[in-house]
Amino acid sequence: MMSILVHFVHLFQKDEMIAIDLEFHQWQLQYQISTTFLLLVITPTLYYLYCKYVTSSPNAYNKLESPVNFTISIPEEARPNWKGKRLYPKPSVAIENDDTKIRSYCPATGQNLGVFNATSRTEMDEMIANAAKAQEKWSKSSFSIRRKLLKSLAKFILENQENIARIACRDSGKTKLDASMGEIMVTLEKLNWIVAHGEKVLKPSQRPGPSNFLLGLLKNAEVRYEPMGVVSSIISWNYPFHNLMGPVIAALFTGNAIIVKCSENVVWSSKWFIEMCRTALRSLDIDQDLIQLCCCFPKDADYFTSHPGIRHITFIGSKPIAHHVVTNAAKELTPCVVELGGKDAFIVLDDVEDIDAISSIILRGTFQSAGQNCIGIERVICMPRTYDKMVTLLTERVPQLRVGSDIDQLDEIDMGAMISDNRFKYFEDLIQDAVKKGAKLVCGGKPYQHPNYPQGHFFEPTLLIDVDPSMDVFNQEVFGPILTMIKAESINNAIELANASEYGLGNSIFGSNYKQLNQLANELKSGNVAINDFATYYVAQLPFGGVKKSGYGKFGGEEGLLGLCNAKSVVMDKPFFRMLGVATSIPKPIDYPIKDDKKAWGFVRSLNIAGYDGRIWAKVKAFKSLAKGGA
Amino acid sequence: MMSILVHFVHLFQKDEMIAIDLEFHQWQLQYQISTTFLLLVITPTLYYLYCKYVTSSPNAYNKLESPVNFTISIPEEARPNWKGKRLYPKPSVAIENDDTKIRSYCPATGQNLGVFNATSRTEMDEMIANAAKAQEKWSKSSFSIRRKLLKSLAKFILENQENIARIACRDSGKTKLDASMGEIMVTLEKLNWIVAHGEKVLKPSQRPGPSNFLLGLLKNAEVRYEPMGVVSSIISWNYPFHNLMGPVIAALFTGNAIIVKCSENVVWSSKWFIEMCRTALRSLDIDQDLIQLCCCFPKDADYFTSHPGIRHITFIGSKPIAHHVVTNAAKELTPCVVELGGKDAFIVLDDVEDIDAISSIILRGTFQSAGQNCIGIERVICMPRTYDKMVTLLTERVPQLRVGSDIDQLDEIDMGAMISDNRFKYFEDLIQDAVKKGAKLVCGGKPYQHPNYPQGHFFEPTLLIDVDPSMDVFNQEVFGPILTMIKAESINNAIELANASEYGLGNSIFGSNYKQLNQLANELKSGNVAINDFATYYVAQLPFGGVKKSGYGKFGGEEGLLGLCNAKSVVMDKPFFRMLGVATSIPKPIDYPIKDDKKAWGFVRSLNIAGYDGRIWAKVKAFKSLAKGGA
Repeated sequence: MMSILVHFVHLFQKDEMIAIDLEFHQWQLQYQISTTFLLLVITPTLYYLYCKYVTSSPNAYNKLESPVNFTISIPEEARPNWKGKRLYPKPSVAIENDDTKIRSYCPATGQNLGVFNATSRTEMDEMIANAAKAQEKWSKSSFSIRRKLLKSLAKFILENQENIARIACRDSGKTKLDASMGEIMVTLEKLNWIVAHGEKVLKPSQRPGPSNFLLGLLKNAEVRYEPMGVVSSIISWNYPFHNLMGPVIAALFTGNAIIVKCSENVVWSSKWFIEMCRTALRSLDIDQDLIQLCCCFPKDADYFTSHPGIRHITFIGSKPIAHHVVTNAAKELTPCVVELGGKDAFIVLDDVEDIDAISSIILRGTFQSAGQNCIGIERVICMPRTYDKMVTLLTERVPQLRVGSDIDQLDEIDMGAMISDNRFKYFEDLIQDAVKKGAKLVCGGKPYQHPNYPQGHFFEPTLLIDVDPSMDVFNQEVFGPILTMIKAESINNAIELANASEYGLGNSIFGSNYKQLNQLANELKSGNVAINDFATYYVAQLPFGGVKKSGYGKFGGEEGLLGLCNAKSVVMDKPFFRMLGVATSIPKPIDYPIKDDKKAWGFVRSLNIAGYDGRIWAKVKAFKSLAKGGA
Repeated sequence: MMSILVHFVHLFQKDEMIAIDLEFHQWQLQYQISTTFLLLVITPTLYYLYCKYVTSSPNAYNKLESPVNFTISIPEEARPNWKGKRLYPKPSVAIENDDTKIRSYCPATGQNLGVFNATSRTEMDEMIANAAKAQEKWSKSSFSIRRKLLKSLAKFILENQENIARIACRDSGKTKLDASMGEIMVTLEKLNWIVAHGEKVLKPSQRPGPSNFLLGLLKNAEVRYEPMGVVSSIISWNYPFHNLMGPVIAALFTGNAIIVKCSENVVWSSKWFIEMCRTALRSLDIDQDLIQLCCCFPKDADYFTSHPGIRHITFIGSKPIAHHVVTNAAKELTPCVVELGGKDAFIVLDDVEDIDAISSIILRGTFQSAGQNCIGIERVICMPRTYDKMVTLLTERVPQLRVGSDIDQLDEIDMGAMISDNRFKYFEDLIQDAVKKGAKLVCGGKPYQHPNYPQGHFFEPTLLIDVDPSMDVFNQEVFGPILTMIKAESINNAIELANASEYGLGNSIFGSNYKQLNQLANELKSGNVAINDFATYYVAQLPFGGVKKSGYGKFGGEEGLLGLCNAKSVVMDKPFFRMLGVATSIPKPIDYPIKDDKKAWGFVRSLNIAGYDGRIWAKVKAFKSLAKGGA
């Protein structure tokens, strides 16, 4: 689903710190206090203040809500250098002549992870019925127990980082580093953010009420957020842990039950992650049926997406499937959030300071999860002065990236396998088309046959420069390890190039002039923009979603929680007027049957003037007419 | 679309005032001050304070934003007792053998209002292209000019109440009273509310940002609301003025252009209302192409709803058409707000005080616009003690209602015509089924042949008592002048009955105990609840929308404005850190190519602990590990 760059600020590197504040450093030397020691004192203090005043989450430190411990056995397959059987000649999720079963295998090694029953239609009915039953009770649960649940999950994840990373890597082929940032960190952030802010977001919202003078005085208007019931998520395979956990966390905290429909590519790990969640539920005496896993091939997915028991669908996947899901959901008028791909631009202006640091961000943003990242960098657009320098830097760095099975190999690995080899031909066609139209292939460009893992789905990290809008690779989503470099003639041209896409998910823009960057951020046609950074909008728990063909609806942050609720509008008399015994009634002149048509009209006419005319004198006259019953 | 009960509080009726405050009255007598005089002083004062402190809309009184005047000729057809040609033998919107033309006629009198060209596909393309061009400029307009536009419209409407009511009545057959409350008042409220609160709603929203310690310190997270482009509304005929104006007002204020696809039943009036809006635009030197009208039969509507130039669809109509619209919109992944019908319950508990006053509200809520109201009262559910009293009252009152063409007749009229006679058979079937299953038909139940208007589509105001869930009329949306009475055995039973519907739009609940009413409001499965009132949630500019088969998405109020925007998530460094020259970069241990796999893992592992572990000591240790590059 997504990836995150870590923000590190060099605070730990003494040299940089001196650069930031020389005087402070002198003072430090004078008193012989080491930077490390200072950090040990300052950090906890700052953290305490931050928790207390910035996140304003006193509940996060409430004893009653302290997390519980639970355990679940770690599968053998996730162990380092596991000796599982390799599938010959070519691994596949489909089992010949049997569409009721799905095979899982490791895309990096081709090792068999098992064969699982696809969920039948009857099982789907049962799941949804059981979830609905569990949800009825859960819908009345306190925020306190919901936070306790989320904190228990967060604690488990924090203590089991390596196991979770290994499980995700085994099923998806990625590296542990990719898993740490794209799977674990973002999930921990979501859990912690909701613990800190979730209740505030979901508490009833008082609204100003009508602008009409009389009504506004009398009526209290509020919006209450109620769970929808059984919701679902239909999620892609690229982040088997985080894509699964994100909707589950939001659904549970909002009082819903959730059926996760995982991708057929990652059934093995999804089962374990769901079991992890259900174990957490059980350990808190909550009905585990609140969370269930559905796995099936597309033919039965239609039954799921048009099921009347499902109240909301969060779809994270590709455009062709999205059409299908939304059309099916239309049968039962089920609301959908649709999160599709992107063609995200990474714009580098000429006034950037540290091109070297930016090239590191480009590498991470392009090759994390072998480019299988909906907000991965699909197009690097540089201004003329930086373009050549960036090309030089990347020409040197991209060929250094090493591909392999990170959790098995003892030597260093930079990029893992892809989920499947079924798009390798597509990649090669894109590259061929680009080269034919004038692009230059610097390195990569073809599948990689790993000497130790001949069944692994590896593709060489690829650098393609001098790309332009005439090429397919400029326009079509790659979702793979191909770094494309585009030269912009001017800042306007850079924005035009970035916007010249049917997608509009995320963009990054780098420069020195924040006033200008802010303005350019407004001109980018996308759902998200990171200024001088990559993808931080996702970690920041802002509403996440795209425009144009990147989909619609938002998950993440406040909007993500509210989107899983029925916002119920409730109006009642204000307590002061209730106390006076004032109650709504139909004024006599317009009560059925109407006694005098002319007076009735005069009455409602004056009512509108009394309520909405800005001129005091017109209002006074209207009130006089009302007092006379409309005459 | 909706109807409103006026809230009047009897403040103008001396007797009641004395009842409220006897002492005040004595003081008044002592000083010989008349109630009317007091009102003339108190009202403007209260109003001034209200504007200043409650609506907090200083801009509403800004000279630069003062409304402009414009004029547009009033059609002859809207004059009282207009002598237009009646259509024989039976009026119809379709023209035989020509599906490129649509006829408009008055449903109350059968008079011809003209024949209009249906919008062709080429014209739709042109409209959308022109709207897109106009929107580009409008998207950059100030809130000041947008408010000025809305205030100019509000002024025109307030000064032309009678003309607008007559135009709406002529095309839909309703009474002027219906038009005043359901068309004009709600439109004025929407205009005034947005003028007062719109800018606040749409200004960038600062968010707490990530809960992660380091990221949270460094990053500013905000959401900016940007117009979507060309949006559309596909609207039903029951409120030809308000249904059209609601989405137009919201679209214009959010910086969008809008194409309105009106119902083929109200082309004549829609053309005038759109021209009114375009005249307002022209009078402010704004491109009139921001608003356009499309009218066509369903076969070409598909082309419209799947048009790639449309960025958002607000659909207000019926469930069968909704499936069609949403399925079409899926082709271009266009987001939709779907507002369908309801089966709204009006619950009366046994502790109500003034049954007589409540019976008046029931009459208004049921028979406004001849029951063609998506939040009209479809089921009156009374507790045993009030049931019989309410039946007695309504048995007396419903037969008194008089049906006719309000804008032509000189005598009093309570209920107008229906848009068409094509559902009369359906009404009769519903009544027959109910009577067969034990309901009692008190009055009405059949079409009404008006002596002066034989072509008018009139149906008798109908009262059906002892209705129960076995009957079709309990379950199916009526959308007509049939008042059904249901007896509940207990409060729980009343809620169960109210929830026993596939719809969930609005509900009303009446009683004396506000604590109980508040609790019951939570148990009602609907998008909106009015406590001791009817439909006020709509006027109050709260998010309006239903659950279950009443649709999804919200319009109205804050959510209605935000729903027409792209919420762009933007993250950047905080100014303080920018000043220090702090910038995001990839920490050395995890920079590509990875130098030491073990250290890289140690580094990201510690990063997660530093960011998310609640224990200070674990954090300190993590920072130490980070300082050592992950070792």
